Amino acid sequence: MKFVEDALTISGIVRDWRKKGETIGFVPTMGWFHEGHLALMKESIKKADRTVVSLFVNPRQFGPHEDLDNYPQDHHRDSALAEGIGVDVLFTPTLETMYPKGYQTNITVQQLSRGLCGASRPVHFDGVATVVTKLFNLVQPDIAVFGEKDYQQLALIRQLTKDLNFNIEIIGHPIVREVDGLAMSSRNKYLDKQERKNVLCLFQAIEYAKKRVGESENGVRTPELIAELLSIIQSAQGCVADYISIVDKTTLTPTEIAGPGNVLALAVFVNNKVRLIDNTKL
Amino acid sequence: MKFVEDALTISGIVRDWRKKGETIGFVPTMGWFHEGHLALMKESIKKADRTVVSLFVNPRQFGPHEDLDNYPQDHHRDSALAEGIGVDVLFTPTLETMYPKGYQTNITVQQLSRGLCGASRPVHFDGVATVVTKLFNLVQPDIAVFGEKDYQQLALIRQLTKDLNFNIEIIGHPIVREVDGLAMSSRNKYLDKQERKNVLCLFQAIEYAKKRVGESENGVRTPELIAELLSIIQSAQGCVADYISIVDKTTLTPTEIAGPGNVLALAVFVNNKVRLIDNTKL
Repeated sequence: MKFVEDALTISGIVRDWRKKGETIGFVPTMGWFHEGHLALMKESIKKADRTVVSLFVNPRQFGPHEDLDNYPQDHHRDSALAEGIGVDVLFTPTLETMYPKGYQTNITVQQLSRGLCGASRPVHFDGVATVVTKLFNLVQPDIAVFGEKDYQQLALIRQLTKDLNFNIEIIGHPIVREVDGLAMSSRNKYLDKQERKNVLCLFQAIEYAKKRVGESENGVRTPELIAELLSIIQSAQGCVADYISIVDKTTLTPTEIAGPGNVLALAVFVNNKVRLIDNTKL
Repeated sequence: MKFVEDALTISGIVRDWRKKGETIGFVPTMGWFHEGHLALMKESIKKADRTVVSLFVNPRQFGPHEDLDNYPQDHHRDSALAEGIGVDVLFTPTLETMYPKGYQTNITVQQLSRGLCGASRPVHFDGVATVVTKLFNLVQPDIAVFGEKDYQQLALIRQLTKDLNFNIEIIGHPIVREVDGLAMSSRNKYLDKQERKNVLCLFQAIEYAKKRVGESENGVRTPELIAELLSIIQSAQGCVADYISIVDKTTLTPTEIAGPGNVLALAVFVNNKVRLIDNTKL
């Protein structure tokens, strides 16, 4: 596996691959790899001749009071994991490479960045759209793999790719969960043992909603279902819902009736310290 | 010359060229070709193996009270001119191709889009940055040629290209002028005979400023020079300055002293009907 930090080198490598007619898969990450990340990389390796993984903790997608400074990092461990499964290039651009002095361009995917996580993280999705556009231009992939865990991000990247005419196939990969159902996340690291137990309320809410909608004939009135899910979250110690929403799977607009094919998305604060998200197709 | 209207066809054509190792030059336009446009195309043809010219009157770069509906168009004449000088593909995407239902992505080059024309045309440069990004992704050029006539646009495209990591060389082409000095523009068509004479005040102001700065030892105080240029514009019947600015050639921030290397940029309304721009390096 090659380690690349600068734009010129990555451009040269992908140009050489292109010349040989090789296809390129891409997995953008912020590091601290868990099984979820590795599943995305394996998907890319399976589908493309070459796989580039980027590792860049993008400051523009963190708000002023978020966890940018504490975001977990271990390049050594991440490198070993990526190399172990057969990634071709680990691209770890510096801050100066990505945002040199005078940098001033911002990309907004207008409707899709507003609701859900966008409501409590107002700069987040502009940061995501902008950095992904830059990375797409640097890596020039044929396919790019994103996790369904960040459902809004995935929907937004699909729209961005279409809107800006990127000739890239966006692949969504199902959420990878721990055995007890907690969705894998780099931020799970922040949880102590008791909190780790309490946050199972997220998965309980998801299982409850799937069952409830599955057993209904014509879906469930959304406000009713949300109230029930809220009581599941609130009954877990230290857990406070940031949002619980049932939305159209493409436009992410709220539905009046929660029915099959809709998406339940939720975000929960744990002891006012960690914010976790999860989602499911109903 | 091939005529292409849809995204799939243009992508296929440039992919085939790439496979053969041919380089691609690109000239984005809004049509109604004059010698200025043709000079950009010739520059591209000289520098690249293949040249794509796009012709798309982009509604997103027009404000609500601007001349979108009246913008001059003659595809037949434009096609003949482009074919005559050896353009390979004339790409004329439809509105539906560029902005299909649900389109929602916007690009802002933050500082460079604010002053000069950006002050009186607040949506203009977002529209330019967005459509150029889309066209770059569709055409995948090695070089792209823009006129220096739209100086702020050129500076903004250079910044956008760098910020978003497009691997494209941006080439600025000098302003092409009529024999009496008027910069060529599709909007000159709007002028009647008398107005055509009166707008020479733009070129007179430019010649005056160049002479004045050329003859000074340490540059000229900017407010002083602007006042002199304003009186040249105001003495022309029906002409009202939208702005007269002397700026740094890269950042476009106003200078206190107008010296060699700075750029004088000006915009003038003629009989409250036509708005023309011009600029020069001092």
